[in-house]
Amino acid sequence: MSGVSQVTIRAARSDDVATIVAMLADDALGRGRERIEDPLPPSYSQAFERVARDPNLALVVAEFGGEVVGCLQLCILPGLSSQGASRALIEDVRVASHCRSRGIGEQLVQWAVAEAQSRGCKLVELLTHETRVDAQRFYKRLGFAASHVGMTLRF
Amino acid sequence: MSGVSQVTIRAARSDDVATIVAMLADDALGRGRERIEDPLPPSYSQAFERVARDPNLALVVAEFGGEVVGCLQLCILPGLSSQGASRALIEDVRVASHCRSRGIGEQLVQWAVAEAQSRGCKLVELLTHETRVDAQRFYKRLGFAASHVGMTLRF
Repeated sequence: MSGVSQVTIRAARSDDVATIVAMLADDALGRGRERIEDPLPPSYSQAFERVARDPNLALVVAEFGGEVVGCLQLCILPGLSSQGASRALIEDVRVASHCRSRGIGEQLVQWAVAEAQSRGCKLVELLTHETRVDAQRFYKRLGFAASHVGMTLRF
Repeated sequence: MSGVSQVTIRAARSDDVATIVAMLADDALGRGRERIEDPLPPSYSQAFERVARDPNLALVVAEFGGEVVGCLQLCILPGLSSQGASRALIEDVRVASHCRSRGIGEQLVQWAVAEAQSRGCKLVELLTHETRVDAQRFYKRLGFAASHVGMTLRF
């Protein structure tokens, strides 16, 4: 009964990289930015090592029925504002297309919010593309406010 | 002739913390979040140490006529997306109220964009409050697109 399978959130390992990259690419906006080859370009595993080494970054995956079906990167950002409280930034939230609408994204984001709070953050922030109306509704349901304009400069 | 004074962008030092905090507080949104006391609450200098220790963070100030009149924090964020290219996030951009409209904010942001590019980032992002219409116009002039919704959850 797959309906009773538990979702597990755990730290990503180097052997998850190909699955994560496939999820990043399986998306209207991500498709043009990734290179899905076998083997993957080494820039991906090099980036994974940079993330894994940094105690302020946490790349996690959601496992469901033994399969990696979601990912999220949490960034803890020390800074002076708000009396020196760190901020948290959530990036690269993805759920595999065949596993959507099962609450997996919600569990990933709830994990990130709880982790940010346990690390002393007073604010969690994220940018979501203006066309991702469903994502904005999803984050509002989880307590986020659409309070800011997210501005980007791509080289 | 103050008109010919040069603006210098340099790494913030611990003795700049009080001036930076005063700029963070001198703002409609920041006022309620900071505590301006003498001495400052130690949480500020502790946060400064966390920032100074992290090679992926750069807190810089703008000096003009020998005075610190602006600040900006650049965060370099390793990650898998965009073929493992790091992203950059700009936070806490402030210019002292008596020094606005002199191009100091522009020099701070241009420094951050150049630094992000030199560190291999393919994307610079930032959140600006939806009420800061002047800031949005400023960033658009510097090449940023208002492409995203910035969502926040404050504890």
